[in-house]
Amino acid sequence: MKQSILFSKTRRSEPKDEVAKNAQLLIRAGYIHKEMAGVYSFLPLGLRVVNKIIDVIRNEMDAIGGQEVLLSTLQDSDLWKKTGRWDDEKVTSWFKTELRKNKTLVGLGFTHEEPLTNIMRNHVRSFRDLPVFIYQFQNKFRNEERAKSGILRGREFIMKDLYSFCRDSVEHEDFYTKVKEAYREIFKKTGIGDRTFLTYAAGGSFSRYSHEFQTIIPAGEDIIYLCEHCKIAVNDEIVSDQNNCPLCKNPKLKKEKAVEVGNIFSLGTRFSEALGLYYTDVKGAQKAAVMGSYGIGIGRLMGSVAEIKSDDKGIIWPELIAPFRVHLIEIAGVNETVTRYAQSLYQNLTEKGIDVLYDDRDVSAGEKFADGDLIGIPYRLIISERSIESGKVEFKRRDGGKVEMLDEKNVISGKFVD
Amino acid sequence: MKQSILFSKTRRSEPKDEVAKNAQLLIRAGYIHKEMAGVYSFLPLGLRVVNKIIDVIRNEMDAIGGQEVLLSTLQDSDLWKKTGRWDDEKVTSWFKTELRKNKTLVGLGFTHEEPLTNIMRNHVRSFRDLPVFIYQFQNKFRNEERAKSGILRGREFIMKDLYSFCRDSVEHEDFYTKVKEAYREIFKKTGIGDRTFLTYAAGGSFSRYSHEFQTIIPAGEDIIYLCEHCKIAVNDEIVSDQNNCPLCKNPKLKKEKAVEVGNIFSLGTRFSEALGLYYTDVKGAQKAAVMGSYGIGIGRLMGSVAEIKSDDKGIIWPELIAPFRVHLIEIAGVNETVTRYAQSLYQNLTEKGIDVLYDDRDVSAGEKFADGDLIGIPYRLIISERSIESGKVEFKRRDGGKVEMLDEKNVISGKFVD
Repeated sequence: MKQSILFSKTRRSEPKDEVAKNAQLLIRAGYIHKEMAGVYSFLPLGLRVVNKIIDVIRNEMDAIGGQEVLLSTLQDSDLWKKTGRWDDEKVTSWFKTELRKNKTLVGLGFTHEEPLTNIMRNHVRSFRDLPVFIYQFQNKFRNEERAKSGILRGREFIMKDLYSFCRDSVEHEDFYTKVKEAYREIFKKTGIGDRTFLTYAAGGSFSRYSHEFQTIIPAGEDIIYLCEHCKIAVNDEIVSDQNNCPLCKNPKLKKEKAVEVGNIFSLGTRFSEALGLYYTDVKGAQKAAVMGSYGIGIGRLMGSVAEIKSDDKGIIWPELIAPFRVHLIEIAGVNETVTRYAQSLYQNLTEKGIDVLYDDRDVSAGEKFADGDLIGIPYRLIISERSIESGKVEFKRRDGGKVEMLDEKNVISGKFVD
Repeated sequence: MKQSILFSKTRRSEPKDEVAKNAQLLIRAGYIHKEMAGVYSFLPLGLRVVNKIIDVIRNEMDAIGGQEVLLSTLQDSDLWKKTGRWDDEKVTSWFKTELRKNKTLVGLGFTHEEPLTNIMRNHVRSFRDLPVFIYQFQNKFRNEERAKSGILRGREFIMKDLYSFCRDSVEHEDFYTKVKEAYREIFKKTGIGDRTFLTYAAGGSFSRYSHEFQTIIPAGEDIIYLCEHCKIAVNDEIVSDQNNCPLCKNPKLKKEKAVEVGNIFSLGTRFSEALGLYYTDVKGAQKAAVMGSYGIGIGRLMGSVAEIKSDDKGIIWPELIAPFRVHLIEIAGVNETVTRYAQSLYQNLTEKGIDVLYDDRDVSAGEKFADGDLIGIPYRLIISERSIESGKVEFKRRDGGKVEMLDEKNVISGKFVD
């Protein structure tokens, strides 16, 4: 994409009404726009990052047998009354609104166990129809009292939510383990794997522990206690009765601020029994499906990356989720040879399927470099009179290292990217 | 995809609470689930169709210079008060809900002129920043009094909305014409081009006419008056003062029931003035941007196709928006040769990048064919003892024609699809 076309502009100064580092950076670089506290819109660069994160997650969900759906936002209260989750005193984060037709209250989905379990009643009859794993990327709404953490805590946010329906707890445990592995892979690919830890949390009624994935971030609203031997953590719900590592019993746990980037729950038969999702087993008996649910907030993941992968100049995107892989910067002045060379390189790389943001704007070199640092595309190519005279292309990684002069053939072949 | 894995099941009988043909067919075939009147969830087959329609539209939007964003659902009332569209008496279709924090009312977006115009104030300074064309695929909410037309009229629905910001009305008219052409192309590619007509509607304050695209469908809630010479129509808002064709003056207009599948509006400077979107022109003067907005409802388009492209057995999807291009049906019984052959053909076609739904289920041939007709994938391949003995593959198009016996090499090469 040509940067002269891209409508979003960068800002030098921090937005006044924003205290969170992730939102400050993402707003200044033109990725997002704040509509109100906890509600953000995604501009072209931001949507590209969202879609790349979604692609990474979708691949992992498909690999473990997930089938993708898209459920509605508006929620029928009847389903939620059956599980006891309609009452505002039980679930404080509901947004509710009224149908004009008959003044009926409906909810905006904050999660989707109820409607999906209800849908499955039409599609599950016998043990042959199970197990089944269903996921979506869908907008969730949560009426948060406090929303000052930028896109780390949204009142409206895109979530990947996955639900599993199994015949029994053995089958469930097997899938639950697969999701854990898929989640590790997702956090690795999105660049936060080394700071993200499986964290033991309170298990509710169905198992001793449930699990979260927590990423160590100074701005985190959660506290975790990390075992540096086992690379796992416990959260503050259970640290009092579990003040040593649940695996190696190490008593020296390190207290850290963290953000919950993913969670996985064993739900047992709570929802299937309440909503009537039964199947006929191999002996002809009626049994309730054993369920699990597994979430990752896309904005929260994106915001966590921006918090961690950034310096005083701007963002440093990991390659797989960067809005573009290559930032091609033309420093032409009035030299048309430079412009022609940059244009043809842009075309060649684009034809090779490499995402390129081409800074063809008529602004100073200093402004181009400052914007490049702020936007944070991983690989930068600079075409200038100097590079053309040398017969080479200037190359720099956003994550550090010195400037290299690359042979043109290596640039055109795309060999300079990892 | 293997059909034994696909969780959605077909139904022989029509859903009791559904009067619209599109929803009856799509529910019976397992594409959608009704959550409440006017609110539907998309199951795997349905989401595939939605995504294919989105791909068709995105290509056309990018071709005319569109930049994709994703705006929020939750709406700050301040912006809408500035344009006079917050009041429930002015806009009856609002859904509103309350922030828990300070009991502030916020809206669920039914369109996005206000928030996008506000965003553009941060990104448009001078004439060099215009024109700019911005689109999204985003969930809209409309508190419809009556919602009995299946996915033709939703309370919640995915819409492609495009907004143009131009320097003056000449630049605006030029883009407006491009959108008309892009829309014709979209309706052609999605299979309803021959029944979809540019329709002249009341123009509001800014021009004599605005335009809709209306598709002739017996279930349509709109009435249009068609000029069969010019292949355009007028709607019932303007037929009284325009009872002949606006182009050729033909007085014999044909009355038809229709569905508005797309609309395009010239907005002038109404929104830019109200919200303060001004730019500095080449002479240094401050001018308000000239705007347009252009919508296509994805569900409405999908439902229109289901209404038109169907017979008493089920749906007949146009190839570009079918959930899969090929339905591979194995009639194996206990013959393992048939199964092995079908499996290898499935693998070969999939590796060639052809979307295949492979019916590997252990059910009768009659059930497989009935489901195939109901689901409506355009090309069907049948592998049976008979086909294996003949050394050929049985081929049938869902839109008619007789069974053909194809050479295996033409099947594997994918040459049988259009």
